Amino acid sequence: MSSPRKLSAIAAALGLEVRGDGEDIDITGINTLDAAGPNELSFLANPKYMPKLASTKAGAVIVSAEHADQVKRALVSEMPYMDFGRALSLFAVKQGHFQGISEQAFIHPEAQLGANVTVYPGAYIGPGVIIGDGCTLFPGVYIGEYCSIGARSVLYPNAVLMAGTVVGEDCLIQPGAVLGADGFGFSRTPAGIQKIPQTGTVRLGSRVEIGANAAIDRAVLAQTSVGDGTKIDNLVQIGHNVTVGKNCFLVSQVGVAGSTSIGDGCTLAGQVGISGHLHIGNNVTLGPQSGVIKDIPDNTTMGGSPAVPQNIFMRTVALMPKFPELFKRLAALEKKIEQIARSASGNSPD
Amino acid sequence: MSSPRKLSAIAAALGLEVRGDGEDIDITGINTLDAAGPNELSFLANPKYMPKLASTKAGAVIVSAEHADQVKRALVSEMPYMDFGRALSLFAVKQGHFQGISEQAFIHPEAQLGANVTVYPGAYIGPGVIIGDGCTLFPGVYIGEYCSIGARSVLYPNAVLMAGTVVGEDCLIQPGAVLGADGFGFSRTPAGIQKIPQTGTVRLGSRVEIGANAAIDRAVLAQTSVGDGTKIDNLVQIGHNVTVGKNCFLVSQVGVAGSTSIGDGCTLAGQVGISGHLHIGNNVTLGPQSGVIKDIPDNTTMGGSPAVPQNIFMRTVALMPKFPELFKRLAALEKKIEQIARSASGNSPD
Amino acid sequence: MSSPRKLSAIAAALGLEVRGDGEDIDITGINTLDAAGPNELSFLANPKYMPKLASTKAGAVIVSAEHADQVKRALVSEMPYMDFGRALSLFAVKQGHFQGISEQAFIHPEAQLGANVTVYPGAYIGPGVIIGDGCTLFPGVYIGEYCSIGARSVLYPNAVLMAGTVVGEDCLIQPGAVLGADGFGFSRTPAGIQKIPQTGTVRLGSRVEIGANAAIDRAVLAQTSVGDGTKIDNLVQIGHNVTVGKNCFLVSQVGVAGSTSIGDGCTLAGQVGISGHLHIGNNVTLGPQSGVIKDIPDNTTMGGSPAVPQNIFMRTVALMPKFPELFKRLAALEKKIEQIARSASGNSPD
Repeated sequence: MSSPRKLSAIAAALGLEVRGDGEDIDITGINTLDAAGPNELSFLANPKYMPKLASTKAGAVIVSAEHADQVKRALVSEMPYMDFGRALSLFAVKQGHFQGISEQAFIHPEAQLGANVTVYPGAYIGPGVIIGDGCTLFPGVYIGEYCSIGARSVLYPNAVLMAGTVVGEDCLIQPGAVLGADGFGFSRTPAGIQKIPQTGTVRLGSRVEIGANAAIDRAVLAQTSVGDGTKIDNLVQIGHNVTVGKNCFLVSQVGVAGSTSIGDGCTLAGQVGISGHLHIGNNVTLGPQSGVIKDIPDNTTMGGSPAVPQNIFMRTVALMPKFPELFKRLAALEKKIEQIARSASGNSPD
Repeated sequence: MSSPRKLSAIAAALGLEVRGDGEDIDITGINTLDAAGPNELSFLANPKYMPKLASTKAGAVIVSAEHADQVKRALVSEMPYMDFGRALSLFAVKQGHFQGISEQAFIHPEAQLGANVTVYPGAYIGPGVIIGDGCTLFPGVYIGEYCSIGARSVLYPNAVLMAGTVVGEDCLIQPGAVLGADGFGFSRTPAGIQKIPQTGTVRLGSRVEIGANAAIDRAVLAQTSVGDGTKIDNLVQIGHNVTVGKNCFLVSQVGVAGSTSIGDGCTLAGQVGISGHLHIGNNVTLGPQSGVIKDIPDNTTMGGSPAVPQNIFMRTVALMPKFPELFKRLAALEKKIEQIARSASGNSPD
Repeated sequence: MSSPRKLSAIAAALGLEVRGDGEDIDITGINTLDAAGPNELSFLANPKYMPKLASTKAGAVIVSAEHADQVKRALVSEMPYMDFGRALSLFAVKQGHFQGISEQAFIHPEAQLGANVTVYPGAYIGPGVIIGDGCTLFPGVYIGEYCSIGARSVLYPNAVLMAGTVVGEDCLIQPGAVLGADGFGFSRTPAGIQKIPQTGTVRLGSRVEIGANAAIDRAVLAQTSVGDGTKIDNLVQIGHNVTVGKNCFLVSQVGVAGSTSIGDGCTLAGQVGISGHLHIGNNVTLGPQSGVIKDIPDNTTMGGSPAVPQNIFMRTVALMPKFPELFKRLAALEKKIEQIARSASGNSPD
């Protein structure tokens, strides 16, 4: 965290109104309601934590207007979680320290580097690569031939871009992520398994984030693509020829098989799996561990494996613990009916 | 893609018959039916895309004989997908540009390198290592002591082979894959958790491919092994002492726990999990996300978690959405029988 | 494996009694009951393998007292698996060969290295880093600014510690593991997705092991933490702000979402997923592929997705294959009752 600043200065920077006792305290950092001290700023975003407003020692709290009078000093926000993020940006320290272009990096003479590019020791840049202004490449980063990286993008240690990968502006590639490895394309033949050469590339839009040790495969032909603003978490797998739209969240350990397309604004929770050659619409939400084997229309929420509409999934899982009882009840009924049938035939007038 | 060539030359190279208008056009590359232009070759492998034959602008199409007269020019194939792959090989450009052995690599004096080996800057080769003819090691590759790599194998950036790993001929290790990390062997004891040293190795056969950021652990004793021709996708986990047979497909994010053996010709779909100490037969197919907790005999297709035979799994999941209704029907029956029983006893003659 | 030693010397080193024919043979290594030769030591830990005692050719076997007379020579143990591990330690060869501090590593002048530290070529150590006595950093390891690593910890190739990560004593970080990548924190706003800066760190206790290509994200604020003695397997994902207690096992491909806390002594089997903001008690066991969406109290075993108590899960899955039959039985009952009802009304006296 950097040096302290006045509460009023933070409020001004965020465009938020201050309410409370009027004292313009020093703010040294940001913390949770539980942990914040009298010179720290806190926030209330999740209503679950509302009771903590009474006991917090925070010097000031980012809250919605309705809670502003429950704390000593408030920064009044319509979107407290977003403004918490903006406040954090004021204090956040940038990852990394290195400046300039290391002589211990390998930079091919036919690579083009923009202005203010940082290349750490141990990075590798192949021929024909174009790197935009203000990019940073950490140690162990590999940029294969003819890759292109937009301005201000950052590649953390050991991230790999195989040949021809295109990364947009303001992207962040977390450590160990691999873009452009070969897609899983093979043909079983009488003479054994034959590899289908993977000749396409990977293209990321702008403001895309790729998580640690995630893998996005190059296409067989053309491109595997991820749209502007989409955020992909750690250990996610994106198969060859997949298209992911804009502003999606793909949470950790999601897997998307080859040639599937995903629309804009989707949220795929952790460990979701989607089979190949499917079309997933816009604004689709998939619950954790769900498994998709059919196309999904726009604006749909699904759960389960295989995935069904979320309300059906929730009703079904609620019934699961009752199955043993269900079988007992059924057996009891069968017995009873047998008795009734027998006694009915005994009662028969003829 | 490399320079263009005549359609007749491609047909000759693939051993395929040309049909159509007889014009021997230049082919500049390969593309999908949708995207191909008049100087590109396309293919029909998946019957789903058959309607596109009528509208494609492709200069020629690799198709089976029955569809040969539906396109302007056809390369007639008995296995269009395989021949598409072979055609792609004619145009595919090799990954990487570096030649020779970099002085910025670390090569232990007691390592032995074959002829025509390429070692990029930033690769590391330990003592006692043997590397076959024509191998390529990209930047960030680590080869621990006493590893051995067969001829023509390629290790992409940041692939790791811990001590003693054996890789066969013509293998391809995608970026970030780790072979020979310690197996997960521990003993809970009254004095806390004790590590069981992992002293074995990993052995890959020939023509094996290992996906990006996959992990194959070394054995406690002896070897974790993967048979000839088997293809392992990204982010797959293979535990210690596992044996995978020949010509298997392990699709992305599969996990196989320790000491399990898998036969030849198996296909494990994405995110499958297999428990430890099991025997999976030959030609076993496991559906996506299935979870295996019992041995599986040869030639079996399974699905679900825990996995059951595929037909049972499919029937069961088809019934899932009907469960809420099932409980209602059961309750209705119970009520009805109660009424019948009561009215029957009311009707009773005695 | 190192040079042979006498059986009596091994027994003395382990504090175990020798029984059998009294011959003090040379032991050259350790092997399974199946594979061990007359100069190898073996063990019986899993009762499943008991029948192999009769046929093993092992020179001696680590067994419990009750089986000591079933083998030629026994080392009598109360915990054979643990003592197998201890015996293996006598023969295990250390991973890696390099000694000292390589000039091909990057070490920032403001980093502090303890005594007997090994730094391989191609490792990177940033400013303000503190590395304890006897640590080893393999090639491609990245240690960001202000990290701290306790004595005798080992980081295998391409392991990454982003800024501020704290690692305890005697830890082992397997290849490609990433500690301290940004947590997955974003806010959907009318102006698009906004990143919440991740400003916290990761803290590992002592004797922690992190698997190959695993990812443990830094906290938004404060710390993501893993307690003493906990072992985390390959490809596991730990989200931001998560707390994992002491002496836990997190098996391969487990995913734990943000802000969840896990107690001491827990075992999470392979591919388990846990949602965010949950509290998992002490000594909790989760079956493979289970999915947790609710808090779990101490000493509980759960299975399924969503997870339910293990006994309910097992009963439910046992019923699954009977569902098609269930629907048939229900339909048969409905028909029968219809008949009874109809015939009852026909029999009605009035």
